[in-house]
Amino acid sequence: MDIFSRIVNQPGPLGKYADFGEGYFVFPELEGDIGSRMTFNGREVVVWSVNNYLGLANHPEVRKADAQSVKDWGLAYPMGSRLMSGQTSQHAKLEKELADFVGKESAFLVNFGYQSMVSAIDALLSRRDVAIYDDGSHACIVDGVRLHVGKRFAYQHNDIDNLVTQLERATAITEKTGGGILVITEGVFGMQGEQGRIKEILELKERYDFRILVDDAHGFGTIGKTGAGVGEEQGVTEGIDLYFSTFAKSMAGIGAFFAADKEVIRYLKYNARSQVFAKSLPMGYVEGGLKRLELIRKHPELKEKLWDIVNQLQSGLRDRGYNLGNTESCVTPVFMKGDTMEACAMVKDLREEHGIFCSIVVYPVVPKGVILLRLIPTAAHTSEDVELTLDAFDAVKEKLDKGEYKGKMTV
Amino acid sequence: MDIFSRIVNQPGPLGKYADFGEGYFVFPELEGDIGSRMTFNGREVVVWSVNNYLGLANHPEVRKADAQSVKDWGLAYPMGSRLMSGQTSQHAKLEKELADFVGKESAFLVNFGYQSMVSAIDALLSRRDVAIYDDGSHACIVDGVRLHVGKRFAYQHNDIDNLVTQLERATAITEKTGGGILVITEGVFGMQGEQGRIKEILELKERYDFRILVDDAHGFGTIGKTGAGVGEEQGVTEGIDLYFSTFAKSMAGIGAFFAADKEVIRYLKYNARSQVFAKSLPMGYVEGGLKRLELIRKHPELKEKLWDIVNQLQSGLRDRGYNLGNTESCVTPVFMKGDTMEACAMVKDLREEHGIFCSIVVYPVVPKGVILLRLIPTAAHTSEDVELTLDAFDAVKEKLDKGEYKGKMTV
Repeated sequence: MDIFSRIVNQPGPLGKYADFGEGYFVFPELEGDIGSRMTFNGREVVVWSVNNYLGLANHPEVRKADAQSVKDWGLAYPMGSRLMSGQTSQHAKLEKELADFVGKESAFLVNFGYQSMVSAIDALLSRRDVAIYDDGSHACIVDGVRLHVGKRFAYQHNDIDNLVTQLERATAITEKTGGGILVITEGVFGMQGEQGRIKEILELKERYDFRILVDDAHGFGTIGKTGAGVGEEQGVTEGIDLYFSTFAKSMAGIGAFFAADKEVIRYLKYNARSQVFAKSLPMGYVEGGLKRLELIRKHPELKEKLWDIVNQLQSGLRDRGYNLGNTESCVTPVFMKGDTMEACAMVKDLREEHGIFCSIVVYPVVPKGVILLRLIPTAAHTSEDVELTLDAFDAVKEKLDKGEYKGKMTV
Repeated sequence: MDIFSRIVNQPGPLGKYADFGEGYFVFPELEGDIGSRMTFNGREVVVWSVNNYLGLANHPEVRKADAQSVKDWGLAYPMGSRLMSGQTSQHAKLEKELADFVGKESAFLVNFGYQSMVSAIDALLSRRDVAIYDDGSHACIVDGVRLHVGKRFAYQHNDIDNLVTQLERATAITEKTGGGILVITEGVFGMQGEQGRIKEILELKERYDFRILVDDAHGFGTIGKTGAGVGEEQGVTEGIDLYFSTFAKSMAGIGAFFAADKEVIRYLKYNARSQVFAKSLPMGYVEGGLKRLELIRKHPELKEKLWDIVNQLQSGLRDRGYNLGNTESCVTPVFMKGDTMEACAMVKDLREEHGIFCSIVVYPVVPKGVILLRLIPTAAHTSEDVELTLDAFDAVKEKLDKGEYKGKMTV
C-alpha cells in the first residue's frame, strides 16, 4: 500500500483531532510576551501552559542579554558542528559554569535537548549492553532506547520492585554478553510531577552493577537548595553518573547539557551523532544561558517566588478537594473524570468564560475516562492569578460533575 | 563490563584524536564575524569551513532583522511545542512562504533539522514498509532509518542499478506485507558534492511503487534557477514527494522545514515525535528566516556571486591539476593521497604558513590513504581569497608529494 495513502487514512492519535481542534486545542496561538497573562483568541488569559518556571523568559536582565548577544553576533554564529567549526570560548565557559553548578567535573553543551538525549543513549550503549528505563520517560529517552540494538527493559513508573526485577534480568544477560547496564529515568516527571526515585535506585548499586542517566528537565532550577536539581534535592549528586537537563524549561531557551566525569563527557563530545553531525548551539543561547545561570545562582528569590506560587496553587486546589496525584514538584496535575469531549468543552469554558488557559492531557496519555489538566506555575504568576484560577476551576468542575459538558462538543 | 570503563578505553573513531588535536584539528575556535576572513589561533585566516553559502550570516539586513526580532521577543518565545503552546502566526507565515518558494502545497517548520529528519522517517514508516536509502546519506537519515523496525536496504551511493536491485527486493517484500516503499536520498551530498540522481530515480516510478524523501540541505538556496534547490535544478519539483531542507546552510540559522502535499504535512505536524514533544523553533529564527528567504528571492545576485566564487575556485583547482571528484555543486572536495598524520601536518601548514583554514576529512569517512580537504565557497568570499588559496594549495601539495609531511606529526 502506498505510504501516503495510509497516513491520510490513519492520521494518528493526535492527528484525528486536526479538523476539530487545530488552532484551539492543538496549535493554539498564545500572543504577547511570555508571562502569566498572554492573549489567546483576542482575550487576555492567565496562562499555565509554559515551562517558564523562574520567569526568566522576560526577566529584564535576560531580555537585555539576549538582545545584546544577538546584536553582537546575529543568529547564525557559530556555524557548523562544535567539532568542525562551531566551538567558541563562550561555549566552554558555560560548560564549566554548568558543571560547577550541578556539582560535576565536566559538562557538554548541546544544540537541542531532544536529539542530544537520543544520541547520548545511542553513543553509550553497545549491543552487549542492556538499557533499563522508567516507562513514564519522555519521548526523547524512549527514542534513544529504540535505537539500541541490544536488550531493553522498561520498568513500571517509579516502581523499585519492578526495577529490581529488570535488573535481575539484565544482570543475567550481561553476565553472558560481557556488557553493562544503563538505567535511565527522570529527576521530575513532567506530566504528573513525581520525582524519580533516584536515591532508592542508587541504593541498588550495592547489589547490582549499573550506571544511571537522569533527565532533570523539570528539576533543574526548580528543586534542590540552590536549584541544582534532583541530585541536590535528594542528596545524591555524586551518585548520578550522567546528569542531563534541557534549557527549554527554567532556562527559558533552547539547547541542553550533560554533566559527568570528564572522561564520560569527552566520550559524548566525540561520539554523540546529533552533535558531531549538526550545528553548534547558537551564541545567543550560550551568552543568554550564561546570564540565566547567573540569575539562578545569584537570585534564590526567583525560586522562592516560584514555590510561593506552587504552594498557593497546590494547597488551594487540595483544600478545595482536587486530586493532584502524587506530585512532588512544581508540575501541578489536576485529575478529573470524564471523556475527551467533556474535557474539551470544559477547557473551552475555562478559556472563554474564565480567561484561564491550561493544557489538557487525554487518552491515550492517561487512561480512558481520565482528564488531566496540567498547570505549570511560575515565578511570573501572582496570587491573583492563583485565586482567579481556583475560582474558575470550582465553576467548571461543578458543571463537569453535573454532566453539563456531556454532548456539548463532538469531533 | 561497566559501560563507563568501556568508553574510556574505546574512545571512538574521532575520540582517539582528542588529546592530539582538540582545539586545533577538532573543536577549533573560529573567532570574529562569520565571513571569508576570521581569526584562528590569533591570526587572520581565509575560512572555507562554514556553510554560509549566500553570505547571509552577516548580511546587514539579516543582522538587522535578527537583532530586531530578539529585541522584540527575547530568545525564549514561544515556549512549548508547536502543538501545545508554541504556535505563532509568524511560524505559519514562514511555512506558507517556504512552500511557495519550493513549489509545494504546504510546509512544516521544525525546531532542528537533525531530529526532525529522524522523526519524519520514523513517523512515515510502519513495520510493513521498506526504507531504501543512499548509503552516502547524512547521519540524520541513517538514524531515522535505524528507528525503522521493518526492512531497510541501503543502495550504493548514486548507483541507479543498485537502487533497482533494492526496489526489486522491497517490492517483493511489500507485496507480502501490504506495506509501501520510501526511498530517501539527498539533493546535494555534502561531503563530495554530487547531486542525488533524483530525475533518474523518479523515472523508476513507472516500474515501481514508491515515495521519495529528499534532503536538500546543500541544494536549497544554491541550485536551481531561483535557488529553490534540486527539484528546480533537475526539473522534478512535482515528483519529489517530500522535500526537506535545514536552515543551517544557505539560511544561516537553525531549524528546518518539510514541504509536500498538505495531507502529508498535516500528518507530520501531528506525528513527528521530536516536534510533538519538543520546543517550537524560536521566534528569532522564524522572523530572521522570513528575512533570509526574502533576500534569497529578491536578490538573485547573491547566488550569482556564490557561483562566481565556486567557478573561480573549482576551475582554478582543476586547472592546476587537482582532483575534485564528481562535484556538481558548490561543495568543493579536493582529493589527495596520504595518511591521516600527513593530512594533519599539511592542514597545519596551510593554517600557520598560508592563513588558509579548511576542514579535513580522513579515514574512516574516506578510504585509507585518501585525504579529503573540503572547501565551502560562499558569496562572502573574494577573488583574492581564491587566489591566495590556490597558491597555498600548490605550495603544500608540492611538500605532500615530496613526502615532507611524513613523520612530522604523531598522535
